[in-house]
Amino acid sequence: MLGNFTFCNPTRLYFGKGAVEHLKEELPKYGKNVLLVYGGGSIKKNGIYDAVTQILKECGKTVTEDAGVMPNPTVEKLYEGVQRARQSKADLILAVGGGSVCDYAKAVSVSVHCDEDPWDKYFIRFEEPTCPIVPVACVLTMVGTGSEMNGGSVITNYEQKLKIGHVFGTQVFPKFSVLDPTYTFTLPKYQMISGIYDIFNHICEQYFSGTDDNTSDYLSEGLMRSVIHSSRIAVKDPADYEARSNIMWTATWALNTLVAMGKDTDWEVHMLGQAVGAHTDATHGMTLAAVSMAYYRHILPYGLARFRRFAVNVWDVDPAGKTDEQIAREGLAAMESWMKELGLVMHLKELGVNEGMLDGLVKSTLVMQGGYKVLTEGEIRAIFEESL
Amino acid sequence: MLGNFTFCNPTRLYFGKGAVEHLKEELPKYGKNVLLVYGGGSIKKNGIYDAVTQILKECGKTVTEDAGVMPNPTVEKLYEGVQRARQSKADLILAVGGGSVCDYAKAVSVSVHCDEDPWDKYFIRFEEPTCPIVPVACVLTMVGTGSEMNGGSVITNYEQKLKIGHVFGTQVFPKFSVLDPTYTFTLPKYQMISGIYDIFNHICEQYFSGTDDNTSDYLSEGLMRSVIHSSRIAVKDPADYEARSNIMWTATWALNTLVAMGKDTDWEVHMLGQAVGAHTDATHGMTLAAVSMAYYRHILPYGLARFRRFAVNVWDVDPAGKTDEQIAREGLAAMESWMKELGLVMHLKELGVNEGMLDGLVKSTLVMQGGYKVLTEGEIRAIFEESL
Repeated sequence: MLGNFTFCNPTRLYFGKGAVEHLKEELPKYGKNVLLVYGGGSIKKNGIYDAVTQILKECGKTVTEDAGVMPNPTVEKLYEGVQRARQSKADLILAVGGGSVCDYAKAVSVSVHCDEDPWDKYFIRFEEPTCPIVPVACVLTMVGTGSEMNGGSVITNYEQKLKIGHVFGTQVFPKFSVLDPTYTFTLPKYQMISGIYDIFNHICEQYFSGTDDNTSDYLSEGLMRSVIHSSRIAVKDPADYEARSNIMWTATWALNTLVAMGKDTDWEVHMLGQAVGAHTDATHGMTLAAVSMAYYRHILPYGLARFRRFAVNVWDVDPAGKTDEQIAREGLAAMESWMKELGLVMHLKELGVNEGMLDGLVKSTLVMQGGYKVLTEGEIRAIFEESL
Repeated sequence: MLGNFTFCNPTRLYFGKGAVEHLKEELPKYGKNVLLVYGGGSIKKNGIYDAVTQILKECGKTVTEDAGVMPNPTVEKLYEGVQRARQSKADLILAVGGGSVCDYAKAVSVSVHCDEDPWDKYFIRFEEPTCPIVPVACVLTMVGTGSEMNGGSVITNYEQKLKIGHVFGTQVFPKFSVLDPTYTFTLPKYQMISGIYDIFNHICEQYFSGTDDNTSDYLSEGLMRSVIHSSRIAVKDPADYEARSNIMWTATWALNTLVAMGKDTDWEVHMLGQAVGAHTDATHGMTLAAVSMAYYRHILPYGLARFRRFAVNVWDVDPAGKTDEQIAREGLAAMESWMKELGLVMHLKELGVNEGMLDGLVKSTLVMQGGYKVLTEGEIRAIFEESL
């Protein structure tokens, strides 16, 4: 049954080849000082940096750069960005990059005018901002996190061995995002497939919960079928515009709150994966891929009807003459084949995890309440062991 | 291939039983004068009028009523509403009703401060508003049109025998809408199933176009499966909250621009149906139902691959050992069975159309360019004849 909810997603999206030109319409709506946030500098090699800074210049903006946002943005980097935003009196934070850059921009946006320690306030105590928020906009260069149209922000504190995500309200959503599929063409294959699995798992996290039959789950099935279809094309031809554009668009809708409306959600795979990320700095999507099969096989008996439906509606498993459990397990086997076909990391050892790290991983894993099984410490350990 | 597009849908939705209470948060954001728009008065019998006016009173609003909005709102009624909004200096137009009431409220909202004839400007010349727009909000009591989260507005001019829809930009979208599934429970079955077919056909109009494979079409398939599933429950038990809530939510997403993103759309069934509406005042969804099967069987050869996909992905037709055309026709047959199962009107004669009206119907039918076949006058006549 669809529970009560409020839906509002005001982010304006400009989608398609050449969409960066829309910056010329949007930038005049904001003040003069722009904090330009980006990552390791790949945007300087593929021309995106030049395209964006040229338009910023044309629009008469004073630009302060905040480069070097890492794949797992750290709390130290956050403190540094806040200082830079304060010094430059930023009127707009323009994130050019993937989910990490956009996540980081949002964390800065709610911290610039905040008197408290943002790590404690937002990521430990999960409080909402009570200060003015600097508007954020995004030019996306890597897909997966959906950060371009949501309030999500994940920050890592290596000292505390914690990687924590806060989902902020609509006031923190990017005001607008530019989604040009060709901006993702130069991404290395490892990052591309990692993003694809991140998308797929976002949908799984919202789909594998509840026993009823609601519109959100039908939408999830459509999104999953779309990403499976397009990923098989993209992995062979990364410059296939149709496949890359569908993947980009699916990513946005996989995590902009739509398919979670009116239902419980799980997110335990993300908790397991984020624990791995906090201990290894491995690529986010790969941490999810490495723990997923052990996790889903573990919880299958507790959500059998949904895993059966997943097999039939998403993977076209023929149910004739099979038990529900056989059908459900065939669905997971089909998912595993697809993951291997893409070339995803299927074992934690490939991400630098060894047996000696298990205690730490278990300790760093948050336990969620919305899925088919609330994991015990023993179960978490077993899942990590099976994923090694 | 996903074409270039801009997506933005800022409407805030409050969904679920008791959602009307959210009016208390929203109403204080607007000025004192509220134009309360509703239809034939059924909201006075089922308690919705009392619930809404009580909250308006609590919020200290000065309310002017504009009742009697008909199922196909007329241009004369529009002129009357504009006068009433001007006289009452409306700060907010609150539509309490179904799509007709909400459509009408939007037409009034763009006309209050407009110096030209709104019929000519918006419905004949399809211009965008250049004047200030009075904000619109909606308390939905009947689902189908999606008007609660889009810019659509359909007005009928009986003198000119024209029923025309204008899809306005985001500035005309309702600021917020209240969606309480229990508000739809008292609706007569005829209206309920008419709304259900309207939803389904909205999805069809956006799905039956193009030859590529994109995310919008996968989302459409999910929405169609959801509405088919829930309609079968609702038609047996109209008070099934789960089914009615899914139908309500599906209706919103069937026509809030999402599943049209990046692709061509058809809308010819709506043109055929609206011609019938302009000549008979028949219920909108029933006019669509009566012409659909003849239309889709007519265009099937021009969009065979998509009709085949529709059969397999939406109606679970087993393709083994069949030609594409057999599969496609089996899909349409499954759709026809479902329509009959719901009790939809399958023949125009039941809506008061006779052979003598065919010339007029053909003349009133606009020809769209986005579907699989641009209809000739002869084809339009043949479709109406087969639908009699």
